[in-house]
Order: sequence, then structure tokens, then C-alpha cells
Amino acid sequence: MIGIFDSGIGGLTVVRAIIDQLPGYDIIYFGDTARTPYGNKSSETVVKYALQNTDFLLSKGAKIIVMACNTASSVATESMVKRFDIPIFEVITPAVELSIKTSKKFRIGVIGTRATINSGIYEKKIMKINRKAKVYSAACPLLVPLVEEGWLKKPETAMIVKKYLHYLKVRQIDTLILGCTHYPLLKEVIQRKIGKRVNIIDSSVSVAEKIGSFLKSHAEVDNLLGKNGKCKFFASDITDQFEKTAKATLKRNVCLEHVRM
Amino acid sequence: MIGIFDSGIGGLTVVRAIIDQLPGYDIIYFGDTARTPYGNKSSETVVKYALQNTDFLLSKGAKIIVMACNTASSVATESMVKRFDIPIFEVITPAVELSIKTSKKFRIGVIGTRATINSGIYEKKIMKINRKAKVYSAACPLLVPLVEEGWLKKPETAMIVKKYLHYLKVRQIDTLILGCTHYPLLKEVIQRKIGKRVNIIDSSVSVAEKIGSFLKSHAEVDNLLGKNGKCKFFASDITDQFEKTAKATLKRNVCLEHVRM
Repeated sequence: MIGIFDSGIGGLTVVRAIIDQLPGYDIIYFGDTARTPYGNKSSETVVKYALQNTDFLLSKGAKIIVMACNTASSVATESMVKRFDIPIFEVITPAVELSIKTSKKFRIGVIGTRATINSGIYEKKIMKINRKAKVYSAACPLLVPLVEEGWLKKPETAMIVKKYLHYLKVRQIDTLILGCTHYPLLKEVIQRKIGKRVNIIDSSVSVAEKIGSFLKSHAEVDNLLGKNGKCKFFASDITDQFEKTAKATLKRNVCLEHVRM
Repeated sequence: MIGIFDSGIGGLTVVRAIIDQLPGYDIIYFGDTARTPYGNKSSETVVKYALQNTDFLLSKGAKIIVMACNTASSVATESMVKRFDIPIFEVITPAVELSIKTSKKFRIGVIGTRATINSGIYEKKIMKINRKAKVYSAACPLLVPLVEEGWLKKPETAMIVKKYLHYLKVRQIDTLILGCTHYPLLKEVIQRKIGKRVNIIDSSVSVAEKIGSFLKSHAEVDNLLGKNGKCKFFASDITDQFEKTAKATLKRNVCLEHVRM
């Protein structure tokens, strides 16, 4: 199975992208809703949670792991690769590569949680590929709670998005990376506020493409993965709100199982 | 020591009220910032966290416990009283008693997190004292993240507060209970949006008064408590944002120690 985890429901946008691009692959998802959100927590805490989540997914039969959470991808990738001897995918590198491939002016904006932006990982990775690129980042800590509340089309959300994007807009970026797996659910209002000429990079789509091309060239891993179209969803805490948002994101009924962490 | 816990920084408003009303008493505070917020989590999860937090405070010498968190007070009080043989204070009963004492029309509004409002505890406790009271409740899940971001005076916050309070305003309440320890930090904008004729009950002040009168009539407990004006602060996760907000709430320098839960 493809094992996927996130701090909560944001990673379901990655599940959606994987189902679109790799239909039929068995998926096991874990949302750490008892400890959500990760974005304002320290690196040390997030690393510990990422390792625990992966132990759980491996115990359920996952053969590759997708960290469908930019905060965990930013701070825990090194520890994850050191600890686990299986393919680990994170959501940052695929988005970085796509941004460099498609940007014309190399004026790239990044939005994410405070932990992701503070880690400086996008700048580092972009500058490593193209030293002349200009990278502008903005932490948008209120967008995760707004998405989790389902406030996708409210005027208050639009105002808050506008305020967060102002810094990037005046710097005339031509590409904007959505550095948080919750943000694709706000793509419409983000596009409207940043301007239609800015190309938006959705990391959930990029990582699904990356996994697809990896599996094509690694038959020994691909053979380990079930292809019966099964999806299993686990969460460390279950509330009505979570099930509601999960259904809206995946456009199908989701049966969640509770697991103690 | 007086042991106080909260899911994060909201409970610092209770610390402030206790310092105001019981100056000199030693205080030990634990903010469960690694697992914050509690307000959207299930009762079972919140009960488990409350018991763990109390075990920690007892191990550090706490002789009475204050649950400075309405979500924990709503769902965990019974389990806490059953498990621990020391005085346990919660923030709900004192606010309920004060609201009944001061309301004239007995049209009482309550705002809180989704978990607190779903528990229905305020209605139950108010109706037990005065069966003719009308209680109207509104969950305001975005106010905690707005407070934690320090967005106390932003226009977006005012708009969101207005939207949440609309239901209570049209029901012409004369009393509004702030059923979350974060909300006193938004008292100004809440008063403006609900109208100046509505009396706002701040549970942090009510619980401090309750503790004060309990200690006056229970010398055997009062004698166990140190009175050297010491305050110790622990958190399960430490970030810059937390220290900043803690300083602003208490108007003094706060030295936080990290503790693993």
C-alpha cells in the first residue's frame, strides 16, 4: 500500500491527486487530528510526530511513505530517510522543480505555515537549482483553520488571503508555490487575489506526478503495491467536522477508523 | 503551589486573574502547546490529555488544580474528580453562577469552542439553577487561532466576531458568557459587536474569585500553598509566537520550560 500521512485533513488533497494519477493503487491514510495542527509547532515536536506516524503506517502494510504535509516535509525529511529504509516522498522537491521549470522571470513566491516558512527550505532548494532566482515567502498561519472550518468562499477568508499575499504581489512574482497541502482548497481565491498572470504550483499534484514516474522506473517497488482500488483512512481523533471536510475534499464517502497514538 | 493547565496560552488569562486577586500565591502553569488546540477534538481525547496534564502538575508539587480551559472543563471534570483526591476547579460553574446572579431578563448567551458548545454544559448548568432562563449558544472556532496570532484589533477579526455573534444579538441576550479562556483578550471587540448593554461574564475572573473564597474557608488547603510570589511556566512545545503572546497577556517576562508529554 501507499502510506500517506498529514497533520490532519490537508493531506487529503494529495490523496485526491494520487487517485487521479494512479487510479487503482491501494492507499492507507493517517491524519494526526489529535495533535493537529503541526504548522505552529517546533521542529523537534514535528519530527517526533512524523516518525510515530510512519511507524503506524508501516505496521499497517505501507511499502512507500508520502509525507503529505509541508511542515513535516520541511523539518522531518532528513530524520525520516535516516530512520526508514523504504522510499520516502515529500511534497517540497516536486513543487520546487516544477516552479523552476515553468517560471519565466524566476520571481517565485512561496506561502505556507509559520514552521514551513521559518525553515527556509523552499529558498534553499530553489537557489540550489537556480542561483539567480528571487524567492519571496509569506507565512499564512490562519489559512489552515479557515480551510478546516470550510470557510472557502467567505469574504473574511478573501480579505485574509489578500492581506497575506500583499507582500508577494508588490514584488511582482510570476509563480506562486502553495507550500501547504490545505491551500489547494483555496486555490480559486488565491488566484483571484494574486492575479491571473501568476502561475500557481499545487504541490499535491506535483508529488503525485513524482510518485508515478518513480514507480514506472522502479518495478521492484511497484510490484509490492496492491492495485485493488482500496482506500483506508485512519485518524488519531474523530470529529464530525473532520468527516464532513474529508467527504467534501474527496467527493466520496469516507469511513474513518480511530487509532490511538 | 496552585497548578493550572490549559491547551495552550488561553489559560494565561486565568493566571492573570489569580495574580490580581491572590497576589503572592505560588503558581505552576502548564500549556499543552504540542497538542493544542483542544476545542475541535473529541471528548475522549481531551479527557486523556487533562488527566496527563494533571499528573504532570502533581509531580511538580501542585496541591490544587485549576482547569483553565473551557473545553477540558466541559468534558473532563467528572473524570478528573473521580481520579484525583484534591480540590479541582473548573471555569464553567463560577461563570454560570455569576450570570444567573447578574442577569435581569435571563436571556443568556454563551460562546465557546465547538467541543464546549456541543457538550451543552452551560445550558445544563444554567437550567439547573434557573429553569426559566433562556440560553443561546454559538460555537466560534476561529477565535482561538485569531487570538494565538495576536490579531486582536484587525478588521477581519471584528468581521468574524460580528458574524459569530449575529445569532445571539438578534435573540436580545442581556448577558454573554465568554466560554473560552482565550476570549477575554477579545473582550473589547466582542463588547462592541454584541452591544454595550450586554453584560459580559469573563470566566477567568469568576474562577479566580471562586478559588479565593474557597481558600478563605479551607485553611487546611490554604496552608499547603506557598506564598512566595513564584510563577513557573511549562509548555509541551516552545515556539517564539508562544513566548510573545505569553508576555503580552501577563505584561511581564515569562521564562518557559519545555516538558515532554
